[in-house]
Amino acid sequence: MVRDITERKRAEEELKTLYRLGLDISSSVNLEELLDKVSTYIYPLFGTNTFYIAVYNEKRNTLVFEIDYEDGVKQQKLEVSLREADGLTGWIFKNKTPVLIGDWDQEWRRYPIVPLFLNKKTKSYLGVPIIYQDKVIGVIAVQSDRVRTFDEKSLKLLTTMAAQLSVAIKNVKLIEDLKMALREVEKSYEITLEALVSALDFREHETQFHSKRVASYAVRLARELGVKDEELKYIYWGGLLHDIGKIGVSDSILLKPGSLTDEEWEEMKRHPEIGYRIIENIDFLGPAKDIVLYHHERWDGKGYPLGLSGENIPFYARIFSVIDALDAITTDRPYRKAQSFTKALQEIRRCSGTQFDPEVVKAFLRIPISEWKKIKQEVLEVRGELSKQLYVTVQLAAEETRQLLGSR
Amino acid sequence: MVRDITERKRAEEELKTLYRLGLDISSSVNLEELLDKVSTYIYPLFGTNTFYIAVYNEKRNTLVFEIDYEDGVKQQKLEVSLREADGLTGWIFKNKTPVLIGDWDQEWRRYPIVPLFLNKKTKSYLGVPIIYQDKVIGVIAVQSDRVRTFDEKSLKLLTTMAAQLSVAIKNVKLIEDLKMALREVEKSYEITLEALVSALDFREHETQFHSKRVASYAVRLARELGVKDEELKYIYWGGLLHDIGKIGVSDSILLKPGSLTDEEWEEMKRHPEIGYRIIENIDFLGPAKDIVLYHHERWDGKGYPLGLSGENIPFYARIFSVIDALDAITTDRPYRKAQSFTKALQEIRRCSGTQFDPEVVKAFLRIPISEWKKIKQEVLEVRGELSKQLYVTVQLAAEETRQLLGSR
Repeated sequence: MVRDITERKRAEEELKTLYRLGLDISSSVNLEELLDKVSTYIYPLFGTNTFYIAVYNEKRNTLVFEIDYEDGVKQQKLEVSLREADGLTGWIFKNKTPVLIGDWDQEWRRYPIVPLFLNKKTKSYLGVPIIYQDKVIGVIAVQSDRVRTFDEKSLKLLTTMAAQLSVAIKNVKLIEDLKMALREVEKSYEITLEALVSALDFREHETQFHSKRVASYAVRLARELGVKDEELKYIYWGGLLHDIGKIGVSDSILLKPGSLTDEEWEEMKRHPEIGYRIIENIDFLGPAKDIVLYHHERWDGKGYPLGLSGENIPFYARIFSVIDALDAITTDRPYRKAQSFTKALQEIRRCSGTQFDPEVVKAFLRIPISEWKKIKQEVLEVRGELSKQLYVTVQLAAEETRQLLGSR
Repeated sequence: MVRDITERKRAEEELKTLYRLGLDISSSVNLEELLDKVSTYIYPLFGTNTFYIAVYNEKRNTLVFEIDYEDGVKQQKLEVSLREADGLTGWIFKNKTPVLIGDWDQEWRRYPIVPLFLNKKTKSYLGVPIIYQDKVIGVIAVQSDRVRTFDEKSLKLLTTMAAQLSVAIKNVKLIEDLKMALREVEKSYEITLEALVSALDFREHETQFHSKRVASYAVRLARELGVKDEELKYIYWGGLLHDIGKIGVSDSILLKPGSLTDEEWEEMKRHPEIGYRIIENIDFLGPAKDIVLYHHERWDGKGYPLGLSGENIPFYARIFSVIDALDAITTDRPYRKAQSFTKALQEIRRCSGTQFDPEVVKAFLRIPISEWKKIKQEVLEVRGELSKQLYVTVQLAAEETRQLLGSR
């Protein structure tokens, strides 16, 4: 009777522990946190601090030993190709069958495998497959340097844990997959914007990569001004899109080599508004739209299209107009060669308080010239691969067109 | 002793049930499924089939009675503004405190509230807040038409359930939020493409909405041909982007009112390739890219740019080229007025096996003309809002430009 009650008490304790484990692990949102939590339950339930959890990576067809403890000491994460994983873990995984070994020296002949722990002091071993909806997704195992540490009850217990674990792992993976998908779509969004905008940029041949470059510059300056990381994407998108309205300006004005007439100039000045109209319904772009509409406003109110002044101009647009000037000065234009960054800094300093927000200029001047040069180079070399290819193609087309026009 | 063992057995049974519940609910990926699962555990644990679960909706500041059973009969879902929810549920929610009522007729004076079940036969009641990281996210309650159905032990049990539930609800909400975010970004992606491509379309004034319209047409035809739902987006994107390469064609050719010279025509024919170059690195677009590159190939091999024939032309491009012809025939062109859909069908039937894939034409001819007209109207009216605004702006700009050019 007493034995029965003791036994019952033990079972109840285990159940309570399992219950707590379930609660604990289901609140995890990433695999590492989840498995770390599981680790703290092994000793109370199995009396050993040598154990591991391997999770199957479907894409790479590998078993990843995410958790591996030996005598309580955490080992390095290890990834093993499933084909090569012919140790006990691979055997359990492939055969979907648990393995309970009371004394390895007596029983090793039963398993047609060379276990990975052969040279270690492990005498008894218990490993079970982690199964989710009939598919093995991993293996959890406990080990001991004493013989017969685990019994049928341990097997039942570990199997129950594995069932909890399978659901938690699947949840965590679903969340991780969704997060990754979200990042990928956002990335694609950016790449698509870059590609379409680069294509537009090529109409003005002298400013290839202009949008991509100013977008990158603007992010740097915004950071200097303490703009939060999660807001920087809006600066970047705004930078990419700022000249999108030039799509409404005809080649004859946009590509005119000489200076524009007053009327042509009026036409050119409509591009911020046209650009804004193009993107105004895209909620996702948020404050990026401010940059498109207001990037030609001036601090002293003499800009366009609305003639706003001072802090009435949205902050991101005030940041951007400094950057747009920086790029205009430091790249070739049809009517003059590119000037140095030193020259650009002088010019921007000179226009602080008239064209530009003085606070923004102050932050701008804190950034060393080397950084602007580095960004320029990166856009050209590292991130400009796509644009370069495109450049060659579109440039060629444009060149042929010019020849055709010339030959008529 | 016997009582002790019985008690212990009961506790163990409860714990086992709770354990199973935990496993069950943590595998849910949507709220409805989750709460339905919880519902099946109420009777075994509390001996009643009258209960409800209300979940807080942060955005709308409401309590949503997601689950409401009376004597085992599922009631309609109910949403109550939190301000008005001054029943017991609102009280529990606001005070973050459980309520245990043994006999309502005796105890009602204790609560400064008018309970929602006042006119019902409820005599005893037990409700607890569902708390996640110190914030109340809902209420779970059980009711009975007998007095003193629930005791302190029931309270403890329901509190434990609520703890499990809180984690599961949060997980499910995280997953739902992520899925919604993903849908939103994808939607934004589409809207952005539409906006940028519409902008491009306006260079060829006679084909406003062309890209959006053919994208919608193409989806209809693809559906007729049994293309899977999840693939349709590629058709749509391909339709939107098919003429993106015209960005590399200069105004003088693209907007030429008369017919093109051979050289100009050669230039024009480069647009599929230029378009493909612009988007080729955007993995996300998948087979949409085929439409961009191959939409001017012909079934008989006399198309461009590669002169592919028959099934060597990617399927989506074969679908699209029929649609592109449909739109070309049924919209105004500078050199002729729009023709009827009947005329277009005749023309497409005539070119089956030469210009077009006969199988695709067969499917195309099965679709009644009324459907094409409906889509055309929808794009113009319903989905064309953005484009219309844009049209006015860009049209105006273009008009002014033409006047300027004319006046010089």
